[in-house]
Amino acid sequence: MYITQALKRNVQLFPDKTATAYMDRTFTWKESLNRISKIAFSIKELGISVEDRVAILAHNSDRYFEFLYSTSWAGAVFVPINTRLAPPEIEFWINDSECKLLFVDKNFSDIISNLKKENKIPTIKNIVYLSEDTCPDNMISYDDLITSQSAEDELRGYDDLAGLFYTGGTTGRSKGVMLSHTNMVVDALNCALMANINENAKWLHAAPMFHIADCAGLFAISQVGGSHYFIPGFIPKLFFEAVSKFKITETILVPTMVNMAVHDSEITNFDLNSLKKIMYGASPMPEPVIVKAMEMLPNCTFYHAYGQTECAPLLTCSGPETHVFEGPLAYKFKSCGKAVAGVELKIADEDGNEVPRGEVGEIYARGPNIMLGYWRQRELTDKAIEKGWMKTGDGAKMDTEGYVFIVDRVKDMIISGGENIYSTEVENIIYQIKDVLECAVIGVPDNKWGETVHAIIRMKKNTSIEEKDVIDYCHKNIAGFKCPKSVSFRDTPMPVSGAGKILKTELRKPFWKDIDKQVN
Amino acid sequence: MYITQALKRNVQLFPDKTATAYMDRTFTWKESLNRISKIAFSIKELGISVEDRVAILAHNSDRYFEFLYSTSWAGAVFVPINTRLAPPEIEFWINDSECKLLFVDKNFSDIISNLKKENKIPTIKNIVYLSEDTCPDNMISYDDLITSQSAEDELRGYDDLAGLFYTGGTTGRSKGVMLSHTNMVVDALNCALMANINENAKWLHAAPMFHIADCAGLFAISQVGGSHYFIPGFIPKLFFEAVSKFKITETILVPTMVNMAVHDSEITNFDLNSLKKIMYGASPMPEPVIVKAMEMLPNCTFYHAYGQTECAPLLTCSGPETHVFEGPLAYKFKSCGKAVAGVELKIADEDGNEVPRGEVGEIYARGPNIMLGYWRQRELTDKAIEKGWMKTGDGAKMDTEGYVFIVDRVKDMIISGGENIYSTEVENIIYQIKDVLECAVIGVPDNKWGETVHAIIRMKKNTSIEEKDVIDYCHKNIAGFKCPKSVSFRDTPMPVSGAGKILKTELRKPFWKDIDKQVN
Repeated sequence: MYITQALKRNVQLFPDKTATAYMDRTFTWKESLNRISKIAFSIKELGISVEDRVAILAHNSDRYFEFLYSTSWAGAVFVPINTRLAPPEIEFWINDSECKLLFVDKNFSDIISNLKKENKIPTIKNIVYLSEDTCPDNMISYDDLITSQSAEDELRGYDDLAGLFYTGGTTGRSKGVMLSHTNMVVDALNCALMANINENAKWLHAAPMFHIADCAGLFAISQVGGSHYFIPGFIPKLFFEAVSKFKITETILVPTMVNMAVHDSEITNFDLNSLKKIMYGASPMPEPVIVKAMEMLPNCTFYHAYGQTECAPLLTCSGPETHVFEGPLAYKFKSCGKAVAGVELKIADEDGNEVPRGEVGEIYARGPNIMLGYWRQRELTDKAIEKGWMKTGDGAKMDTEGYVFIVDRVKDMIISGGENIYSTEVENIIYQIKDVLECAVIGVPDNKWGETVHAIIRMKKNTSIEEKDVIDYCHKNIAGFKCPKSVSFRDTPMPVSGAGKILKTELRKPFWKDIDKQVN
Repeated sequence: MYITQALKRNVQLFPDKTATAYMDRTFTWKESLNRISKIAFSIKELGISVEDRVAILAHNSDRYFEFLYSTSWAGAVFVPINTRLAPPEIEFWINDSECKLLFVDKNFSDIISNLKKENKIPTIKNIVYLSEDTCPDNMISYDDLITSQSAEDELRGYDDLAGLFYTGGTTGRSKGVMLSHTNMVVDALNCALMANINENAKWLHAAPMFHIADCAGLFAISQVGGSHYFIPGFIPKLFFEAVSKFKITETILVPTMVNMAVHDSEITNFDLNSLKKIMYGASPMPEPVIVKAMEMLPNCTFYHAYGQTECAPLLTCSGPETHVFEGPLAYKFKSCGKAVAGVELKIADEDGNEVPRGEVGEIYARGPNIMLGYWRQRELTDKAIEKGWMKTGDGAKMDTEGYVFIVDRVKDMIISGGENIYSTEVENIIYQIKDVLECAVIGVPDNKWGETVHAIIRMKKNTSIEEKDVIDYCHKNIAGFKCPKSVSFRDTPMPVSGAGKILKTELRKPFWKDIDKQVN
């Protein structure tokens, strides 16, 4: 069970079919594997050995695809970096994983050049420049990796480490999720099976490829021999152009993107009839959005998927049969669906025992998709995985038919535009501000992003601070998407539980009361 | 990755849906798992520990299904016995695998009683009687296994041994193919993916369940949460009755059974419109049969699958798109299809190097579906699997689109009515007959069975023997389906290769010349 098997099968069965298309570049599966084995050769020439980590910081493109496979072919471990991080966070990911080699495109080359200049990423020996314009002096041009020599597949597989995917953490620092070849391949089979994806698929990589959701879609499409298409990032017009030009059949988006697309006035100028499936995840689709989406894309069906990086990621899915407004499955799309074929789920109490149906507990998952562990964090790993069960940190209830409804995030996470934000991480930054006495960061409803970050702050007596100052301070220290969009101040102490923990459920109530009414 | 995970998922998602239906017995998934965990408890009470082997010799029924899962739940290894074996062969399988416990139905209880009485199966401590009529004195009634106590799942999985499937061998004796939990689960996912099987599937077990083909179908159906229906064995009228009564949607058959069904006059008396998919394997479907099948079952689609026990078993498949008589894929159903998603294939020369497309070589397969090895046959295993590649022993060529055409069986196997027959095994028996000088067993074309067994014999000078005597001698020693249906005698030496090996290709020619003309 190994990632690169799919490449060989595709060259064998579909040598002349499109593997990747980006802008005016198109490669067949035969051409693609030829390039990948050559890039792998050069990666090894740059001193990369089996199990060495290689990072990428770039927008979507065919070269991102080639990066994932050529590092795997060379036996190395890929480390996709979130493109929205602040420099100190990028620095942390690279140093924590001790990456030796880094691929970067023009959008991020300045950040990387500066980090390198300041000697903040000392493990990086070489930097490969992905873009087609002039290669900076201190970097290696991507095209130069393609020489006449090609490498043999190192044939890493099964429990060997394939990739490190960093995820935010309540401790204020990201941790590296170690995913094996088996994790990725089993997830690819589960994805393909649940959404009935086959060799005729034309998948558009519109959501960011550094994220496990689209990245897992990539491996699923390759596994069944479909074709990959890319836009640098999600912009409605680019999305419409690509769907109509390439006759895209399926893609994965977050509800925020679906919302942006279906409300964009340009949508009617394009023929989007080829689009048969949109998978979406991270948060439920608000009813007005799905109604509008079905109206604007009558040929399209929708799949609500739920998972997490630690689970490689797919855990549950609900397909077109639940995206209905009457009948026995009416509105079940508001659940995140049922356990997919290869995955075992339970809703458990604090002792790990299954709770009765309809009661809230934490989602536990078990199966061949569960991560190897957190990179160099034995203790955290042991806490997260107990007797093979991954404790997801997500609170949910399950109905009698097995549909899972997320009700709370035990780990106190905010999801804004599909990005996970751990409130503790933001709170830790705010607590660095002088005279902050108490602070609680929560998600508040937002039509565009699903949720946005809101900070509630109590200052010491006789001190004060402006909303703007808090937001500015955050922007200097963490990624923009994690920073509060709004701040409110209070004089009275925060409501706390018997154990002295701030009761965020209480703080959230005034913001969510209208929405909660709609859902229940 | 473990077999019993599917049971738990199905109880969680479809507790009240039919798991199994046989005659007038129906059990929901909840009832079924309840029974299985109780039977597992009793199996353990009978002294069965983790990794102990437990055999079954029975026709198809819901209890065969329960047997497979309750042995797995108890951590034991199931050993399905071919129902067409002669007593000495049954004896060999049981002794070779050192089974401690045996499940038998009324059709085979006399054979087993005799073997037990003659002390020929000494490792068997207990015998469970599966049928509902009076339980023989020396056996335990199946119903008595279901008490108030139930076992916890032993949670065997991944590379743990799940089942032993015996297969004929050129050495004249069967060998036990060790299949792991990963082997079975990966195959189940591949099957479900290639034939788009989902929770709405109603699968009829009509082909024998001891055979890996239907048994793998069983695990695939459970994996996606479908329902199981059973008839004791393939008889056209029983088949029609079950399809029409239970609204069966899919099944697996061998071409011989398809042929029998579509030419049976009863077929028009039943509503078979629910039947959407027939998988078939073991040999290509003769054109007149597929034409007739499409005419008689206009709602049904066909999938030609190829595999072997050692590969758990699925390797290639061609679906409805190849069951056409015009267009670019016309007649491709005569190939056995293309490598399925999780499997790596190549056609290799004697050194294991891939041959150019269109040239004949041996099929090599690699992937997580490849067996752990042959039971207690280290040397044979090392010969069969080289650097992860299973050498299938089947000769084939691959066209430019990746379709595989079986052209010869390197291991010299005859397939009659879906059963593998190793000619060497039959030859070894014939050589025991006095005055046999040379003997070659080959398959000759047969309208009903695809092939039948034919023996060519050269006797010592001045001796002779009747065709009937040869056939009778074989029937006393090996399963009926392996015995020659016809014998021809010759006075001249057999044609041999430079290395002195009998050239069976030459011997086959006069029998196959008309058929070969049709195919090429």
